Amino acid sequence: MIDEDIQAALDAKTKPPGSLGALERLAASLCRLQGTLEPRTEPARVLVFGADHGVAEEGVSAFPAAVTGQMMGNFDAGGAAVCVFARSVGASIEVVDVGVAADISRLATVVHAKVAPGTANMRHQAAMSDAQLDAALAVGREAVQRAVNDGVQLLALGEMGIANTTAAAVLTALFTGATADQVTGRGTGLDDAAFAVKQTVVGDVLQRVEARDARTCLREAGGLEIAALTGAMLAAVDYHLPVLVDGYIVTSAALAACALKPATREALLFAHRSAEPGHVRALAHLQATPLLDLDMRLGEGSAATLAITLVQAAAAMMREMASFESAGVDGVSR
Amino acid sequence: MIDEDIQAALDAKTKPPGSLGALERLAASLCRLQGTLEPRTEPARVLVFGADHGVAEEGVSAFPAAVTGQMMGNFDAGGAAVCVFARSVGASIEVVDVGVAADISRLATVVHAKVAPGTANMRHQAAMSDAQLDAALAVGREAVQRAVNDGVQLLALGEMGIANTTAAAVLTALFTGATADQVTGRGTGLDDAAFAVKQTVVGDVLQRVEARDARTCLREAGGLEIAALTGAMLAAVDYHLPVLVDGYIVTSAALAACALKPATREALLFAHRSAEPGHVRALAHLQATPLLDLDMRLGEGSAATLAITLVQAAAAMMREMASFESAGVDGVSR
Repeated sequence: MIDEDIQAALDAKTKPPGSLGALERLAASLCRLQGTLEPRTEPARVLVFGADHGVAEEGVSAFPAAVTGQMMGNFDAGGAAVCVFARSVGASIEVVDVGVAADISRLATVVHAKVAPGTANMRHQAAMSDAQLDAALAVGREAVQRAVNDGVQLLALGEMGIANTTAAAVLTALFTGATADQVTGRGTGLDDAAFAVKQTVVGDVLQRVEARDARTCLREAGGLEIAALTGAMLAAVDYHLPVLVDGYIVTSAALAACALKPATREALLFAHRSAEPGHVRALAHLQATPLLDLDMRLGEGSAATLAITLVQAAAAMMREMASFESAGVDGVSR
Repeated sequence: MIDEDIQAALDAKTKPPGSLGALERLAASLCRLQGTLEPRTEPARVLVFGADHGVAEEGVSAFPAAVTGQMMGNFDAGGAAVCVFARSVGASIEVVDVGVAADISRLATVVHAKVAPGTANMRHQAAMSDAQLDAALAVGREAVQRAVNDGVQLLALGEMGIANTTAAAVLTALFTGATADQVTGRGTGLDDAAFAVKQTVVGDVLQRVEARDARTCLREAGGLEIAALTGAMLAAVDYHLPVLVDGYIVTSAALAACALKPATREALLFAHRSAEPGHVRALAHLQATPLLDLDMRLGEGSAATLAITLVQAAAAMMREMASFESAGVDGVSR
């Protein structure tokens, strides 16, 4: 679908040219990705990948590491924010254990695809092995394949993993060239002392990791959930499936995915501008303007899920909105 | 419902305190308005009031005045942006003719409540009579009563009326004390010459109108649709019914409604930050922070309709999200 056709279709609709702002840009992205003037984004599915992080033992999170597994139980019971939001917007949700430390095999609605019970502590060694990285990427791809098999036309990606803003910070620094203090924020609510520790840890990892190719970055500093998110994005673009990127952590996976395969960028829609300072740098690197700015910092895919409606409305606008000609409405006077 | 109870309920939920940002503030507003920790916002209805403006003959719009009536036909056929968005978010829509110049009595889905075939030209005389103002306010109230009778729990308000950003500009200046150039924007897309005319016209009306009580402002410079929107807001707060305010024009009605009855403010939720310069002043006057900033300038209720999902998600979060205790999730470590 060429850009001129898309613009002509948008400008023929019964509205002043450009007056739907970001919704028009969103609609154009969907048309380009799907190669049609009638893009499809229903049904939508939320994919949440959960994993633990060895670096949590450094004290970089306000919450104990056990919360990752506990929150998987909360997802299973439907009580977490992302579950409530998914029901509210009419999206299905799939939660995948790609690396939770706790044994959560009892959880019936969770997809059990544990690659390892968490990563190694990246302050001192690579977070994962090559084989673990490949396995985690495959977990993401397989989740997308299940979604495609189920007829899903829009994905929203989320994550759960105590300490994973530390991994996102390191990855953002590695992929954008920013410094430790430019990418390190307070996550879900660090006090001053823990924040200082987190900055030191991020700086230490950046000193330790030398090679900067995308696979090495992911292996050294990624979480298993971040690798799975990366794999999901790489697969989604192959299916021309639009993907809503949540906040800082999912965006760090987007940096990896776009470094591994630049065409992935075409499938990515950015849901929310996080309060985390590194997120601004990651978004700028990806030339992304998020749809929402709601002062949220929860993760889980909560913001991506809220943005599903905007994407579906933009697609419906392309498919269903009348033209000046079809509706018998006059255009501008001059 | 006291604020401490609401905050305690929010902080008990399985998320870092405050991490849902604007959604938490939105949820708290709904709880206060409805006097409950389990607010209800479904089903939602979009109300669109259409009317013509005598001042259009001054050349203050990029579109000919006939477009108001033509767009009512487009609403009736379901082809306008607000119709598409309402379907997309699962809201019903009611379109009301409160003052369209054209005879649109043939349109089957439109509520025919025409007070007059448009206002008088406010550059030279009051836009409407006292009796017309009362009738238009009543049209708004009656639409809300119909919604309440139908079990509606959330309203999104919109409008259609060529030249109505000129009316919104004058009202914003009158209610906030701003000057003509501070409140006059390019509406749906004015060129430089027409923009200069619009500024002159706004200035002329501000010179002509002396009294500044809310009723006089509305009568002198309101549109019939703006008066109906005002009446709708005044009624909604009586029913503890939350109201999503669209862009510049609906916000000008909010200024009038809050001047007439300050308690109205409690029912109002602001959907979108318009690119119109006067909108910033109106929002500041009402101490309002909109949910969305999507670079939209269409009106119709299009942005308010898109924000319905956010309001419904916030209410669902209050009703359905698990607490740390109920989910067995640990809180912050320190």
